[in-house]
Amino acid sequence: MDQVETLRAAVGATQVLTGADAQAYETDWRGRYSGRSLAVVRPGSTEEVAAVVRRCAQAGVPIVPQGGNTGLCGGATPDDSGCAVILSLQRMNRIRGIDTDNDTMEVEAGCVLQAVQQAARDAGRLFPLSLAAEGSCTIGGNLATNAGGTQVLRYGNMRELTLGLEVVTAQGAIWHGLRGLRKDNTGYDLRDLFIGSEGTLGVITAATLKLYPLPAARCTALIAVESIEAAVAVLNRARSGLGASLTGFELMAGDCLQLVTKCFPRQRLPFEGPSAAMPWYVLMEVSDSESEAHARERFEVVVGEAIEAGLAQDAVIAGSLAQSHALWHLRESIPMAEKETGKSIKHDVSVPVSRMAEFVRGTNAALQAAFPGVRHVIFGHLGDGNLHYNVARGEGWTEAQLLARQDDVYALVHDRVHELGGSISAEHGIGQLKRDVLPRYKDPVEMALMHKIKAVLDPEGIMNPGKVLDLVSGRMVSIAATEKRATT
Amino acid sequence: MDQVETLRAAVGATQVLTGADAQAYETDWRGRYSGRSLAVVRPGSTEEVAAVVRRCAQAGVPIVPQGGNTGLCGGATPDDSGCAVILSLQRMNRIRGIDTDNDTMEVEAGCVLQAVQQAARDAGRLFPLSLAAEGSCTIGGNLATNAGGTQVLRYGNMRELTLGLEVVTAQGAIWHGLRGLRKDNTGYDLRDLFIGSEGTLGVITAATLKLYPLPAARCTALIAVESIEAAVAVLNRARSGLGASLTGFELMAGDCLQLVTKCFPRQRLPFEGPSAAMPWYVLMEVSDSESEAHARERFEVVVGEAIEAGLAQDAVIAGSLAQSHALWHLRESIPMAEKETGKSIKHDVSVPVSRMAEFVRGTNAALQAAFPGVRHVIFGHLGDGNLHYNVARGEGWTEAQLLARQDDVYALVHDRVHELGGSISAEHGIGQLKRDVLPRYKDPVEMALMHKIKAVLDPEGIMNPGKVLDLVSGRMVSIAATEKRATT
Repeated sequence: MDQVETLRAAVGATQVLTGADAQAYETDWRGRYSGRSLAVVRPGSTEEVAAVVRRCAQAGVPIVPQGGNTGLCGGATPDDSGCAVILSLQRMNRIRGIDTDNDTMEVEAGCVLQAVQQAARDAGRLFPLSLAAEGSCTIGGNLATNAGGTQVLRYGNMRELTLGLEVVTAQGAIWHGLRGLRKDNTGYDLRDLFIGSEGTLGVITAATLKLYPLPAARCTALIAVESIEAAVAVLNRARSGLGASLTGFELMAGDCLQLVTKCFPRQRLPFEGPSAAMPWYVLMEVSDSESEAHARERFEVVVGEAIEAGLAQDAVIAGSLAQSHALWHLRESIPMAEKETGKSIKHDVSVPVSRMAEFVRGTNAALQAAFPGVRHVIFGHLGDGNLHYNVARGEGWTEAQLLARQDDVYALVHDRVHELGGSISAEHGIGQLKRDVLPRYKDPVEMALMHKIKAVLDPEGIMNPGKVLDLVSGRMVSIAATEKRATT
Repeated sequence: MDQVETLRAAVGATQVLTGADAQAYETDWRGRYSGRSLAVVRPGSTEEVAAVVRRCAQAGVPIVPQGGNTGLCGGATPDDSGCAVILSLQRMNRIRGIDTDNDTMEVEAGCVLQAVQQAARDAGRLFPLSLAAEGSCTIGGNLATNAGGTQVLRYGNMRELTLGLEVVTAQGAIWHGLRGLRKDNTGYDLRDLFIGSEGTLGVITAATLKLYPLPAARCTALIAVESIEAAVAVLNRARSGLGASLTGFELMAGDCLQLVTKCFPRQRLPFEGPSAAMPWYVLMEVSDSESEAHARERFEVVVGEAIEAGLAQDAVIAGSLAQSHALWHLRESIPMAEKETGKSIKHDVSVPVSRMAEFVRGTNAALQAAFPGVRHVIFGHLGDGNLHYNVARGEGWTEAQLLARQDDVYALVHDRVHELGGSISAEHGIGQLKRDVLPRYKDPVEMALMHKIKAVLDPEGIMNPGKVLDLVSGRMVSIAATEKRATT
């Protein structure tokens, strides 16, 4: 109880939760990862975060930073030991300022993504990060996992949207790195080291984010194509014909959309006849700085040329905002429809765009050979080379049978991704979920560099232990820490 | 001689230069930094680089990586001791491959930037990095310094143009990180740690770079404005009206352009009357994915609105490629014209765009108070908040008198930059030039993190010693290395 008292002294008694009050923080939102904590601490300022970290560091208490708790890899959930403090950033939710002349905003880590988008919009600007959990995920979590989403093609990941950071180190010192500069070449890039490190190197408490002009108009089209090769060829034409106006290029397998219209009969595919039964569809979005009319005109040129060249079989360009929403809604309903049919085995992978067709064809065939009858649920951000390649039970499989083979399916898909120069986690991170398979795919020199950085920035190993780096690393860190103690 | 023999064994006798043969590598291209080397080694492959580094590491020989030797901060020049090996990457100049479907290219560190631009163009793509030294600087140097240039507003710095790296660590291991992925969230961002580290953490031997569609048309305008505030307001309108088509927004003081036309009489300002004598000019460039006509039309809308709103006083839109080149040539001739009038004290600084006017006004006034009569030579990339703010001798100053006060001028300007949340090196890096002043402006927590990373990735301190981190760090590293040797 001593340690908990110490934390109460740091942040105030009412902001330290234990027992039943802590439970909501000990399980992720999907209920996939669960653990126990010594306490949940909810600091209200950067100084309080630093005070908490210092006390934990002194006592050797592990810290699990947590934002909206919406991550998909268990990165914000403690282990079962009950030793760790969950450091919730939720109370640090101030938008500290917006500078429209500099096109930047300074926000605290606990700000919900949607609130940040809205504040930018209220100032006449766009903060482009957009993803399914935006109503509850926080900027701190977006930074910790280098979040992606649907606008990466044009605006990049969270990393590319961030200019500066404020970070509490594993020793409880505050790094004041909130720079609103687009050019700053004064030493090592610590910003990008903390972004994507999933809370294992320090605690991000605030960030300076980039803003963009609000587009004058957005236009969406659904395009029917016969193959992934054709989709890639359309992408190429769209990139060159639309330039940076091209903000979305999503690929969806035909059977994904059929599943959506079957599960949610109020949604329908805007095609008739053969066009309604194509193997692949592309959802393309353009954000125009000029006008609705111009967006539509450019779209018609690009789509028209693709149809003439035989690359696209059919296309529907949304004639209104409502139609545009309906098209996006089709895309966004795929995970929900998939859920209706039972649990599936999910992969968040990327390969070079040029190898996407080869990846899907080869992996589909290998899966059918190894697990005959399983269904493929394939959709994703083709423009970024990022596919959500999921495997669902098909004819002759029960859910239990499928899930019993989960690790074998993972291994088959991830091995294939690796062969093609891809990534086993395109946008969700490593967390607990992929920690143990990471060394299988990562260059050993790269793994060793990661361990070195972890060991020097967090020598006591208190920052989100067991995430990203495997158990061997945990031991390495503690050996290093022990050695350090012995020699100093 | 033993060490030199060892290097000859690693790369072949003809690729190890000593004595007079080495001299060209021991001085930077401007002749500002000069040193002595044990030898110049010119490996032809990544494996040879690794072999050289391993041998140096074993013998404790410092390594100075070098590309085109065009850096402005002495980052590629050895010290006077004659102990260091200059590791020239010039022979590693292969373009390993171009993947147009993935919009990436794989190039070796010794490729000259212009050759990379050309290879991309030959494949129908744009590699957008563009800067004055592009005919001789190398990709490795661009990566080591996170080079900027004239297209950052749209495409970002070298960092944003790079997807993957191949690096030889300070221990001589090869990290195979040449990924062509736009999304990859599998652990710490080592790529961005090496980019911008100026050869102090390892040797970058190759990179996977992003390519873009070639614009259909480029259009340039020169705009006369009364103040920096007005220029910032025009920038805001251009960003919102042109979106990502806006690829250049350069600010130039009127007297800079007057100096150009005076020094180079064949160049002329395309204005008459009062518009030819304005205090500030903006060079604006748009890269259009549609057509020449569309680029011009959009330009006319934005510039017309700026004039109507009283923000711009006059404007000339280039009617041909030749006129466009002439406008850029005015901008690019400023440093040459400046040189004609004698040596000046140069600053490569950035501040938030919103504080640019305040920075220039306040710094000009403070300089006049401290050094009455000096001239300001002010131009730069306003769109990125990056100014080349130079100080030249004016009435009543000799060159010698001015240069004698160089450190005082630096301190005044950099202190002011720092007060306004800016950077003392926007795009050129730290090298030797700004190493000793860095700790004055950098958050001590950030400095400590940098030292830790240096110490753990290069514990023997052999990678480009004396660059970026100050002498205290050199000692810290060597103490750490000594301690390590003593305990193992």
